[in-house]
Amino acid sequence: MRVRAPHPEATVSTQRLEAYTDGVFAIAATLLVLDLTTTDLGGPKSDAALVGALLSIWPGLLNFAISFLVLCLLWMLHVRQFENIVRVDGVAIWLNSARLLFIVLIPFTTSIAGEFASLAVGRMAMPVNFLVVVALGWVQWLWVSRTGSGMLSGLDERAVRMARRDGFAAVLLAILTVALSPLFGSLAFVVFALDGPLSALLNRSEREP
Amino acid sequence: MRVRAPHPEATVSTQRLEAYTDGVFAIAATLLVLDLTTTDLGGPKSDAALVGALLSIWPGLLNFAISFLVLCLLWMLHVRQFENIVRVDGVAIWLNSARLLFIVLIPFTTSIAGEFASLAVGRMAMPVNFLVVVALGWVQWLWVSRTGSGMLSGLDERAVRMARRDGFAAVLLAILTVALSPLFGSLAFVVFALDGPLSALLNRSEREP
Amino acid sequence: MRVRAPHPEATVSTQRLEAYTDGVFAIAATLLVLDLTTTDLGGPKSDAALVGALLSIWPGLLNFAISFLVLCLLWMLHVRQFENIVRVDGVAIWLNSARLLFIVLIPFTTSIAGEFASLAVGRMAMPVNFLVVVALGWVQWLWVSRTGSGMLSGLDERAVRMARRDGFAAVLLAILTVALSPLFGSLAFVVFALDGPLSALLNRSEREP
Amino acid sequence: MRVRAPHPEATVSTQRLEAYTDGVFAIAATLLVLDLTTTDLGGPKSDAALVGALLSIWPGLLNFAISFLVLCLLWMLHVRQFENIVRVDGVAIWLNSARLLFIVLIPFTTSIAGEFASLAVGRMAMPVNFLVVVALGWVQWLWVSRTGSGMLSGLDERAVRMARRDGFAAVLLAILTVALSPLFGSLAFVVFALDGPLSALLNRSEREP
Repeated sequence: MRVRAPHPEATVSTQRLEAYTDGVFAIAATLLVLDLTTTDLGGPKSDAALVGALLSIWPGLLNFAISFLVLCLLWMLHVRQFENIVRVDGVAIWLNSARLLFIVLIPFTTSIAGEFASLAVGRMAMPVNFLVVVALGWVQWLWVSRTGSGMLSGLDERAVRMARRDGFAAVLLAILTVALSPLFGSLAFVVFALDGPLSALLNRSEREP
Repeated sequence: MRVRAPHPEATVSTQRLEAYTDGVFAIAATLLVLDLTTTDLGGPKSDAALVGALLSIWPGLLNFAISFLVLCLLWMLHVRQFENIVRVDGVAIWLNSARLLFIVLIPFTTSIAGEFASLAVGRMAMPVNFLVVVALGWVQWLWVSRTGSGMLSGLDERAVRMARRDGFAAVLLAILTVALSPLFGSLAFVVFALDGPLSALLNRSEREP
Repeated sequence: MRVRAPHPEATVSTQRLEAYTDGVFAIAATLLVLDLTTTDLGGPKSDAALVGALLSIWPGLLNFAISFLVLCLLWMLHVRQFENIVRVDGVAIWLNSARLLFIVLIPFTTSIAGEFASLAVGRMAMPVNFLVVVALGWVQWLWVSRTGSGMLSGLDERAVRMARRDGFAAVLLAILTVALSPLFGSLAFVVFALDGPLSALLNRSEREP
Repeated sequence: MRVRAPHPEATVSTQRLEAYTDGVFAIAATLLVLDLTTTDLGGPKSDAALVGALLSIWPGLLNFAISFLVLCLLWMLHVRQFENIVRVDGVAIWLNSARLLFIVLIPFTTSIAGEFASLAVGRMAMPVNFLVVVALGWVQWLWVSRTGSGMLSGLDERAVRMARRDGFAAVLLAILTVALSPLFGSLAFVVFALDGPLSALLNRSEREP
């Protein structure tokens, strides 16, 4: 089935890779809602009781919101990364598939986080899953941006170096998230507010020549 | 992972944002059907009994149809808004993610509306959810269309002002829908037939110079 | 939120309408598999028993295959129709949404067809659903192709007339399918093999001038 | 509804076929996660017990990962094949639909593989499903690449011949996977590491002229 396209190194264009990736992200994000069911609300008989029931499931709602926004964050990292990737080879596709495999696991690790919130391992499930995705994204970027791959477009040497450090910064923050998660659970994801400053720090020498 | 694209203010093109958004909308709309199951039909043994059983679940079918069409309405608002947006920055992406978060909640609030139709709070669930989405869409538009953002294309000052008033009109109608929903439930969404006339009224001075 | 695009009659391009439609079709088609679960297989303990269990669920598998292929047929009709539509107005979008509403119902009517195959009404569920989609598609085409709509591109008067008759032929065949379904169930869809000859018959005068 | 496009043989462009295909693949791949539920974990009360419970469900996790990666492999074969297909006729669309029908079955055959891993027939379910998809892909390629179809672009005679042999190699390996699966289950998919060498062998005469 392998069609040898008239391109260097049997690469294919990224258009369908992006479509497939967007689809997997969109579905994983939307499946999260299946965890929220009316059965958890019991059978409230008055308006006050229904409001009370909705308030009482706030940990599940918070869990849902965090996982949804984490998926959006991971999707945004993918979009930014692929803004400059024009073609991918077999290895890059497989790294993308591995990345998507752990994206699809997020509804499962979200369930674990919800059900075993009282256990440290339960609180770590989502952050560990997240770390694997970020690390695979970093490896994928290193592969695609290596000298002479011909898969990038419109980036000079300096921009590539800076993007690599940004990827490394994301991995560092993901590790920090995992380390903090036994204490704070999925709230540990707020450390990603440090993403901008940390990237700026790592790229100090590049940006202020 | 943040690739600094050679564009102003680290914006990305809207193509994948639209694909991701379309995916989330399509899945949320389609998941609504999972609420309709044959178990609610009981075990009718004759054609007449099956017709009777199908007629008896009409509130669920109506609920499904209204939520589906509301999702289509919200999707259409997004499409029209993005017809003129060519690039988005980080803030606009996060506002879009927040908007999608409440899109994904719609199958859940639809379940609440179905199960607690006898309670005022139950009847308000979907309209409140809808109001949040419309309000976030309005904020997103204000952000994207602010002077000098460079994210719009092909719209003059006057068209931008009119689109802002249209967005404000949608928020007003969504508030009216919430206010009417304790009485009429999801049928309150018919007030959106007023969308055209209200926009015309607000933009009177612009359109008839 | 309504952005008045600099186009005639507030139309939008069909690109996102097609993406949203493809998404809804793809999800509805894929959700059909959720009806097939291993619980129906019982707990076979030997290879022979498992083969027997798989063979015994053939009506469910046939049901699944027919509904999947019917969805693919309806999707193909949409693709062919939109090959020549370049822009859509609000009415055309709402007709498309109504069409998608009944696409999303297909997993539900498939369940009914599977569970109540012994009842005439059960056997008619899918064909009736199908007829509504085909009829809405025909109405949508009549709206879009009316003189002066400006939504078509690259079709002359004669091609538009022929496409209208093709749409009418599809509605006739869908009615025939409904009429035959009490006897043959979803197998009645084989009448769509007559689609080519019937279209040719209706367009006889056009094609052999 | 059939619009006779001004193209040879009533073909349509492949853009929406690819979008629909990507959607079906993405959803089938993501639905696999629904098989992983927290109910299988029991109710562990300590971190050690939760780790133990997670380790104890490794066959399900492995099953999930293999099916996910097999879907990614099948998707990649489709992408490579369609890199050079520019238009498709009705037959090619129906062959694609049949291919997608068996893609959608993969979550079901994965469930069978998981539940009946102790039976040879259970272990063969996924590989047989895979073989059908690969064979349909080969037939589709033969149809599209036949002399004078006008559906390919940018491939010379020799490249078409080589792609046919690659397709044949994939079918051979899929048959080998089925043959090995009673012994090794889904692990038999590792034979696809032979895909490159086997294609090279079959195309020896072409590549070393």
